[in-house]
Amino acid sequence: MQIGVVGLGRMGGNITRRLMRAGHRCVVFDTNAKPREALAREGATAAGSLAEMVRALKEKPRAVWLMLPAGRITEETVALLGGLLGPDDIIIDGGNSFYKDDIRRAEKLASKHIRYVDCGTSGGIWGIERGYCMMIGGPKEAVDHLDPIFSALAPGQGDIPRTPGRGARDSRAERGYIHAGPSGAGHFVKMVHNGIEYGLMQAYAEGFDILRGKNSPDLPEDERFELNVSDIAEVWRRGSVVSSWLLDLGAAALAKDPQLAEFSGYVQDSGEGRWTVDAAIEEGVPANVLSAALFARFRSREKHTFGEKLLSAMRFGFGGHVEGTESVDRKSSAAE
Amino acid sequence: MQIGVVGLGRMGGNITRRLMRAGHRCVVFDTNAKPREALAREGATAAGSLAEMVRALKEKPRAVWLMLPAGRITEETVALLGGLLGPDDIIIDGGNSFYKDDIRRAEKLASKHIRYVDCGTSGGIWGIERGYCMMIGGPKEAVDHLDPIFSALAPGQGDIPRTPGRGARDSRAERGYIHAGPSGAGHFVKMVHNGIEYGLMQAYAEGFDILRGKNSPDLPEDERFELNVSDIAEVWRRGSVVSSWLLDLGAAALAKDPQLAEFSGYVQDSGEGRWTVDAAIEEGVPANVLSAALFARFRSREKHTFGEKLLSAMRFGFGGHVEGTESVDRKSSAAE
Amino acid sequence: MQIGVVGLGRMGGNITRRLMRAGHRCVVFDTNAKPREALAREGATAAGSLAEMVRALKEKPRAVWLMLPAGRITEETVALLGGLLGPDDIIIDGGNSFYKDDIRRAEKLASKHIRYVDCGTSGGIWGIERGYCMMIGGPKEAVDHLDPIFSALAPGQGDIPRTPGRGARDSRAERGYIHAGPSGAGHFVKMVHNGIEYGLMQAYAEGFDILRGKNSPDLPEDERFELNVSDIAEVWRRGSVVSSWLLDLGAAALAKDPQLAEFSGYVQDSGEGRWTVDAAIEEGVPANVLSAALFARFRSREKHTFGEKLLSAMRFGFGGHVEGTESVDRKSSAAE
Amino acid sequence: MQIGVVGLGRMGGNITRRLMRAGHRCVVFDTNAKPREALAREGATAAGSLAEMVRALKEKPRAVWLMLPAGRITEETVALLGGLLGPDDIIIDGGNSFYKDDIRRAEKLASKHIRYVDCGTSGGIWGIERGYCMMIGGPKEAVDHLDPIFSALAPGQGDIPRTPGRGARDSRAERGYIHAGPSGAGHFVKMVHNGIEYGLMQAYAEGFDILRGKNSPDLPEDERFELNVSDIAEVWRRGSVVSSWLLDLGAAALAKDPQLAEFSGYVQDSGEGRWTVDAAIEEGVPANVLSAALFARFRSREKHTFGEKLLSAMRFGFGGHVEGTESVDRKSSAAE
Repeated sequence: MQIGVVGLGRMGGNITRRLMRAGHRCVVFDTNAKPREALAREGATAAGSLAEMVRALKEKPRAVWLMLPAGRITEETVALLGGLLGPDDIIIDGGNSFYKDDIRRAEKLASKHIRYVDCGTSGGIWGIERGYCMMIGGPKEAVDHLDPIFSALAPGQGDIPRTPGRGARDSRAERGYIHAGPSGAGHFVKMVHNGIEYGLMQAYAEGFDILRGKNSPDLPEDERFELNVSDIAEVWRRGSVVSSWLLDLGAAALAKDPQLAEFSGYVQDSGEGRWTVDAAIEEGVPANVLSAALFARFRSREKHTFGEKLLSAMRFGFGGHVEGTESVDRKSSAAE
Repeated sequence: MQIGVVGLGRMGGNITRRLMRAGHRCVVFDTNAKPREALAREGATAAGSLAEMVRALKEKPRAVWLMLPAGRITEETVALLGGLLGPDDIIIDGGNSFYKDDIRRAEKLASKHIRYVDCGTSGGIWGIERGYCMMIGGPKEAVDHLDPIFSALAPGQGDIPRTPGRGARDSRAERGYIHAGPSGAGHFVKMVHNGIEYGLMQAYAEGFDILRGKNSPDLPEDERFELNVSDIAEVWRRGSVVSSWLLDLGAAALAKDPQLAEFSGYVQDSGEGRWTVDAAIEEGVPANVLSAALFARFRSREKHTFGEKLLSAMRFGFGGHVEGTESVDRKSSAAE
Repeated sequence: MQIGVVGLGRMGGNITRRLMRAGHRCVVFDTNAKPREALAREGATAAGSLAEMVRALKEKPRAVWLMLPAGRITEETVALLGGLLGPDDIIIDGGNSFYKDDIRRAEKLASKHIRYVDCGTSGGIWGIERGYCMMIGGPKEAVDHLDPIFSALAPGQGDIPRTPGRGARDSRAERGYIHAGPSGAGHFVKMVHNGIEYGLMQAYAEGFDILRGKNSPDLPEDERFELNVSDIAEVWRRGSVVSSWLLDLGAAALAKDPQLAEFSGYVQDSGEGRWTVDAAIEEGVPANVLSAALFARFRSREKHTFGEKLLSAMRFGFGGHVEGTESVDRKSSAAE
Repeated sequence: MQIGVVGLGRMGGNITRRLMRAGHRCVVFDTNAKPREALAREGATAAGSLAEMVRALKEKPRAVWLMLPAGRITEETVALLGGLLGPDDIIIDGGNSFYKDDIRRAEKLASKHIRYVDCGTSGGIWGIERGYCMMIGGPKEAVDHLDPIFSALAPGQGDIPRTPGRGARDSRAERGYIHAGPSGAGHFVKMVHNGIEYGLMQAYAEGFDILRGKNSPDLPEDERFELNVSDIAEVWRRGSVVSSWLLDLGAAALAKDPQLAEFSGYVQDSGEGRWTVDAAIEEGVPANVLSAALFARFRSREKHTFGEKLLSAMRFGFGGHVEGTESVDRKSSAAE
C-alpha cells in the first residue's frame, strides 16, 4: 500500500527502506533535503513539503507515518497534518511520544474524523534487517487497515522457537507486533519496555563493574583476580540464564576493547525511562530497580552533586573530617 | 574419559547423562539410592559409598565432580575425598560454593597435591539439552586435563552468531566455558552471574507490575487500559531490545496463565545474590540495582516488617494518623 | 488582625486556636457544624457558609486561610472564594497542594487582583504548642501584610541555639517561617521537606529492623542478641549523631510497646513524597533514598506484587524451583 | 577512679579531658609524644609505653580504654595488653571495631580472665562539651564496675524532655549510655547507628539537591525559583518534622556558604555503613535506603564507573548513540 513517511533520520530512513523492500510505495518528507533525495534514488517519492506529500498520497484513506523526536516537533507536525488530512485518514506516530500526549492528540483529531495511531517502535539501527518490534495503540479499524504496513516492518516469526502454550492466540504477537489497546496504549507499553531496558542494562553494568573491581590494583594482591571481561561476556551468551540481546551487544563492545576506552561514561536518558518511574508512582507500584537505573544515568552526568558536598559538610560538622579530593581509593574508609 | 559424580539431584543427574551421551564413563554416588540406581540403568557405574566410588575410578589422575548444595554438605564431602584421593587427583566443585571457601579448600588440598577446581555451572533443568555454561577456576593443568569433560557439558557454538571482533581469541568462551582464573575465580564469576540474573529478573518484574497496574480497577476508568501481558511478553521476544532467555521463560509462564495464580509471590534467594552485594561493598562499587533486586526478595517473604510498623508509629506520633489495614488501595494517600 | 479560616480539622482547628491566643480575630467555616461550634465557644466567629464568612470579614484587605485536603476540595474552595472576594484580598492555601496547582491558581486569581499565597505548614498535632514551621510562596506585599499571622503561628526562636554564622540575615527563618519565593515556592519547599521526612523515617525503620533482626529466633543461638530497642532509641536521643524529633517520636512509641503490636505495618503516603520524586526526575537529580522510602510504603500496602509472582514463575522456568509459602524464613536460601 | 587511655587523637584526647573534669585519674599513652605531653600538662599521667602505662595503674582491677582506628592497630594493641594485664582487669574498646572482632577478642581474653568491653562511642568533636552517647557490650560485672566512667562521659539527662512512658526503666539510657548485651552488642548497636546516620544524611543531601536543582539555569526561566537553601535549612530547625542535630550541622554549613564551595563532594565512608548493609543481608532484612546511602558515597569517589561506560557501549550498539562528554545538561534526554 501507499504511505507517507515524515522524518528520515536513522529510524525513519530505514523504516522506509524496509517498507519499500516489501513492495509498499512511500512518499517521504524531511526538512533536510539530503535524506529525502537519497531515498528518492532508492525508489521513494520525495516531497518538498508536508502539503506536497499529502497531495502525492492517492490511496484513500491516506496514511502518514511520523518518525520524529518526541516533543515539540512531533506535536507541531501532527497539528499541521491535522489541517491537511481529511476524514478517515490516519496519522501514525512511530516515535517515542508520551502516551498522555497521544490520548490528547487522538481526541482532538477525532473531532475531524482523522484517526491517530500511536506505535512504539523498537529495533534501533538493527531494525532494517531484524525487523521492528511494534506496540500499537488506537482504533481497531485503523490498526487493521494498516496491517500490511506493520506486518512488513515486523520481524516475523523467523527461527525463534514458539512459546509453549501460545496455542491459537493472536498471531501478531508472534510475528512482532501487537495492538495493545486504545490511543496511548502503544506508547505506554513501549515506555515500560524502555524502562525495563534501563533496568536490564544497569544490572549488567553493575555486574561487570564488580567483575572489573576484582582486578583492581587497590586490592591486596592475594585478593585480586585477572578476570577477562570479554571472555566472560562471551561465555554468558551460551547456555547461561543471563543471555540476552543486550548481552550480545555488550559482548561485541567488550570484544572490541575490554577497557571500553572510547566511551566517556556519560550516559543520556530518553523521556521513557523517566515516564516509567512516574507511571509507577502514579500507580503506587514499587520500582526500586527501574528508578535506580534511571538515577545512575543522572549521576553519570554530574561531576559532583550538591548533595555530596552537603554530606562532606555535615561530616566536617560532627567529626572534623576533611575529605580527600585526589585519587580514587575504592576501599577507602574513615572513622566516624 | 572416566569421572566420578557425587550428588545426583536435578543438576548432577543430568550432568551425568550429558557426559555419558558424549561417551564419558561415569561412576556415580548419592546418599539416596534411587537416583544412583536410575543412572546405573542408563549405563553409569553406581557406587555405594564415596570410598567405593574412588576405588572404581581406574584412570589416573582420578577426577570427581561434586554437584551438591553449597555449604556444610559440600564442605564435608570435600574433606572426605581429601582423605580418599591422592596426588594429582582432581576434585571439581560444580555447585554454588562461596568463592572464598574455594580458595581455602584449594590451599588445604594442595598440601596433599590434590587439585581442586571450582566450576560455576549455569543451565538449570534445561542444561541437559542446551548444554551448561561453565565458569572455571583453578590450576591450568587440571583445567586443561578436564577439557573433554567441559567440552562435552558445554553448549558448543551452536547456531548462536559469532560476536563480531572475537577473532582468534580463546574459543572455549564461544563454546560455553571459560577458565576464569585461579581457585575461586570460577565461582566468583558465577556469583556475579547470579547477581546480574536477580537484577534482570527484577527489572522485568517491576515492568510487568507497572503494565498490570495500568489495568487496575483502582484507576479511574478513563485512565485504565486492558493490557494483555501475555501478548506483550510474546511481542518483546521479537526484534525488541529487551529480548532474553529470561523473557522467553516469562512469556511461557504468562502464556499459561496471565494471572500467574499458581505462584504465591514468595521468592527465595540463594547465597550468590547476597555474596554479590557483599563483594560490591568490599570493592566499593555502587550496586543499587543488584541490591534492590535482592531486597525485593527479602521483602517478598515478610508479611510486614518491624520497620513498617515503626513508620506507622512515627506517623501516629506527629500527625495522629491511624493507618488502614484492610484492603489494598494502591492510589491511597493521606495528608501529612 | 482579622482572618477567615476554612477547614477546621486537626490542623485548621489548632491553627485557629493558636491565632486567637495571639489576639487575632478568626471567622471560621467548615461544612461540619461541630468543629465550628466548638471554636465559636472558644471565641471565634462561626460562619454558616463561605459567603457568610466573607461578609463577616470587615478588615480590608480580607484574608482567608484554607486548611483543607489537597486536591479537589481545595480547588473548588479556591474557585468559590475567587467569586466572593475582591481586589487586594488574600487567599492563603495552608494545606499540602501541589506547587504547580498554586502557580495556576495564582495566575487565575491575579486577573481579578486577588492575591494567592501558598503556605506549606509543618507541625502536625504538636503545632498548637510548639508552633508551626511555615514555608511561604507568593507576592511580597501579601506575605508582608500577613506577617502578624505567620509570626503568631510560628514557634519563634525559643531556646533553640542560634546557628553560628547566621549573622543579621532574615530573622524570620530563625523564628520558624520563610518567604521562599513566588507562587508555588512555599509548597515546593514543603514538598521537599516531606520527601526528606520519608527518607529520614525509612532510615530509622531499616535500622531498627536490623537491630530487631539480630534478636530473631531464626538466627543460631550464638549469633543472636537480645537488644532492647526501647532503650536503644532512648539512648540515641542523647549526644548521638542520629538524634532528631522523629527519633523522639519513635522512642516514645517504643517505650509504650517495644513490639509496636498495635500498628499493622500498612503505611500510607501523601502526595508530597510522590511529587518530590517526580521533581527529582524532572530536574535530573538522583534520588535513590527518597524514592526507596516512597516505594517501601507502596510495598507495605500489598500482600504480594504481581512482579514477585513473575519472579517465582521465572525461577520455576529455569530451575524447577517451587517456592514455599508458609512460614517466613529470613535466612532461607536456595540453589540456583 | 583510675583508668588508662590509649590513643590520644581527637576522640581519645577529649575523652580523657572529660574524664579528668569529672575527677577521674587518667594514665595516657600514644605513640605520638605531643598529645600525651599536652594531656600531662592538663593533669594526666603520661606513659612512654603500654607497659609503663599498665605499671602506673595502681587500682585493681585495672581498666584501659582504647580509642584507636578500627582494624590492625586496635587488634595489635589488644593483643599486647592481653600480655600485660591480669585476671579481672578490663580492656574497653571505645573505637569503631567490627562486632564480630569483639566477640573473638573477648573469648580469647576470657581464657586469661581478662574482661573485654566493647563500647560504641558517638559524639564526635562535640562530645567533650555535649557528652558522648555510648552503646556498651560485655560482661555485666565489668560494665557495672566501669559505671563511674560511663556516667562521666555520658551527656546526662540535661534539658532534653523525658520520653513519655519511660517510667522507671533503666535510667542509664536517659543519661546517654546503655549496656546493650554481651560482647559485640555495643559495637553492633553503634554500627547500626552509623548505618542510620548515613541514611539520614543522604535524605537531606537528596532533598537539598532537589531544592537547588529548582534554581538551575538549565530550567526554563518560568519554571525556576531562587530558593535560599540557607534559610530553608534554618527554618526547618524550628517546629518542623525534619529537625535534627544533623540538620543543625547542615544549617551551620549552609549559613557559612550556601554554595558549599570548599567541599569537593568526595565523600568517605567508614566500615560501619558497610557492615550495616552486610548485617541486613545476613539477616534477610530489606535495606534499600541504607544501601543507597552507602553506594552514593562509593559513587562520589569515582569519576566514571566502568559500568557507565558499558551502558554507553550498549546504547551505541543498539541505537548508534554517541554520548556527549562535555557540559552537564541535567535535563538532557535522547531518543531510544
